[in-house]
Amino acid sequence: MGKQYLMTAGPTPVPERVQLAIAQPVLYHRSPAFLEVMREVHENLRWIFQTSQSVLVLAGSGTAAMEAAITNFHSRGDRVLCLRGGRFGDRWSQMCRAFQLEVVDVESEWGRAIDVDAVAEALDRHPDIRAVYATASESSTGVAHPVREIAALCRDRETLCVVDAVSALGAFDVPQDDWGIDVLVAGSQKALMCPPGLAFVGVSQKAWRFNERAGLPRFYLDLARERKNQEKSETAWTPAISLVVGLREALRMLKEEGLERVFARHRRLAEATRQACRAIGCELFAVDSPSPAVTAVKVPVGIDGSAMVKHLRARYGITIAGGQEHLKGKIFRVAHLGYYDTFDILTAISGIEMTLSDLGHSFERGAGVRAASELLRSGA
Amino acid sequence: MGKQYLMTAGPTPVPERVQLAIAQPVLYHRSPAFLEVMREVHENLRWIFQTSQSVLVLAGSGTAAMEAAITNFHSRGDRVLCLRGGRFGDRWSQMCRAFQLEVVDVESEWGRAIDVDAVAEALDRHPDIRAVYATASESSTGVAHPVREIAALCRDRETLCVVDAVSALGAFDVPQDDWGIDVLVAGSQKALMCPPGLAFVGVSQKAWRFNERAGLPRFYLDLARERKNQEKSETAWTPAISLVVGLREALRMLKEEGLERVFARHRRLAEATRQACRAIGCELFAVDSPSPAVTAVKVPVGIDGSAMVKHLRARYGITIAGGQEHLKGKIFRVAHLGYYDTFDILTAISGIEMTLSDLGHSFERGAGVRAASELLRSGA
Repeated sequence: MGKQYLMTAGPTPVPERVQLAIAQPVLYHRSPAFLEVMREVHENLRWIFQTSQSVLVLAGSGTAAMEAAITNFHSRGDRVLCLRGGRFGDRWSQMCRAFQLEVVDVESEWGRAIDVDAVAEALDRHPDIRAVYATASESSTGVAHPVREIAALCRDRETLCVVDAVSALGAFDVPQDDWGIDVLVAGSQKALMCPPGLAFVGVSQKAWRFNERAGLPRFYLDLARERKNQEKSETAWTPAISLVVGLREALRMLKEEGLERVFARHRRLAEATRQACRAIGCELFAVDSPSPAVTAVKVPVGIDGSAMVKHLRARYGITIAGGQEHLKGKIFRVAHLGYYDTFDILTAISGIEMTLSDLGHSFERGAGVRAASELLRSGA
Repeated sequence: MGKQYLMTAGPTPVPERVQLAIAQPVLYHRSPAFLEVMREVHENLRWIFQTSQSVLVLAGSGTAAMEAAITNFHSRGDRVLCLRGGRFGDRWSQMCRAFQLEVVDVESEWGRAIDVDAVAEALDRHPDIRAVYATASESSTGVAHPVREIAALCRDRETLCVVDAVSALGAFDVPQDDWGIDVLVAGSQKALMCPPGLAFVGVSQKAWRFNERAGLPRFYLDLARERKNQEKSETAWTPAISLVVGLREALRMLKEEGLERVFARHRRLAEATRQACRAIGCELFAVDSPSPAVTAVKVPVGIDGSAMVKHLRARYGITIAGGQEHLKGKIFRVAHLGYYDTFDILTAISGIEMTLSDLGHSFERGAGVRAASELLRSGA
């Protein structure tokens, strides 16, 4: 039969309602029907970004929006601060270097949150830092970084706070306006419950001021051009029409559930996953500030993490992610991001228990499922 | 009831088989199942590009692939030649300027093909031209430009021939290797019968040599990085998974039909559309070399083209495109690009006849449908 379960931190499962919306006949992107879709999507993106400013819709993956968050706000040689504590923090740093910016790095050990004092110190040491590039949820390590505190440090300086919230937006609270985040970057294939192919950038007034002086060349990802088109509910280039129609449906579902309840669901599922993993003798990889989006777990001693991920997929049809870079084979990562509920988590934990048993890990069988069930049962 | 008919030169209608493929549950992009999808897509893209070289798959619209065709092959200040005879030719020129290249333009009047002698002359006048940017099918005017002859001029020079084939690839013959096109750019939402959101770039060995010395900054659209990932059937960034699965199905359909028959179908439908328009007293906009992808037609004297397009959509549910820029209100454009057959063309022509009657154009009613039917009936 081969029933499949997708449990990675992107792509995430797409709800049936969204799949059906995506499968509808394609609309012409300049037709009144599609302009109305776009208008609703823009409005609901502002809702989920918690901003009164424009949120721009790009055809591309999250990396496209990250690039837009660099090239639209700087000139060659500008000094920026990149906060690195995992693969996506590293990507900010690589990208800023690729566009010939002067990069200062603040690093945290993988599995630990960025030290806010170290950020403050770097900003004091280099008063010409024009932007701080941060990651809200670092998918490679399962850590949520202290974005609120980082944004607060930028507020009274001529420094933008730019946040990669690709796997955070819609999973936990990252209110753009309230926290003073100048550029907030997100993607469709995480908590927004759509297939990959759309990326979003929320831009503050302060960031638009930087945009006016930004000399880096850009065209496809020119946000000022997007903003001008957005006023007519259009996009600068042909949008990924079907995915936008799917996104409209996904945003409607999130609004029906309500932001607070969406966040509470993610918190509960994350907590259940963590307790279940501890109950079967697996240590969490995130030392502090574990992310509500994805849980990274150390593979038990004597087990090969890559073999574990492969076994879980080949034998039980459950796809989770392994570790990346130097963590290859050493951790596994279970997502609880997007269209997940109680029984998805129990499925994941059950499959992990079976796999660890098959591979010879010794633990109290059923303890993981019991721990998660206790926390997730009604009234708990 | 409101049945809708999409007849624009992008997006184009998506076949039911492709819609259903897109609506399937999302695969993890590093899973064996998806890597196999990618392997097949890469193979069949090489087939439809008629090349033995890599064809790279990007998440983005056609403009993203156009940008990649600039930033991956040049350094700031390189001299390039842009061939302009419509909105998409103009876009090459704007983009090359945005990336600080030295642009020489050769223009043709909108509605006319680029003059090959003028291209040769410009190349002789500026021996340091590093690339010629051309458009195979100019959607804004319905003209097919002489890409084969233009490519031949570049072959023995240190000059790349770069062709925007976004609305040409799969509609008529643009064999990359045979004609010596160095960089061929295409998109998913035209003859490839998918929704927008994927873009493709085919790259010759000569172009890869240029790539090694190309200094323009790039990251999201870095083709060398894509090529390295493609060797493992992966992409550098999260691909637009659902659209890629849809594309696999669309490419299978095209292979089942066969390239020669696909091209013959487009030629027949284009010829039928042109004869039908002439039969109802409408003059073609393309003076020479009309494109097999889209027919641009002058609006009869006394009729407002924008009102005509609006009436056709609001009253009859048929969406065609009007004119752009200075042609707004002056032409209408009927596509026959992608998933179109005999009765789609008869539908379009019937709707246009009804609309022109409603708006007071005087012509022999039924003459358009009769002309198209005569040409399209079996055995004709």
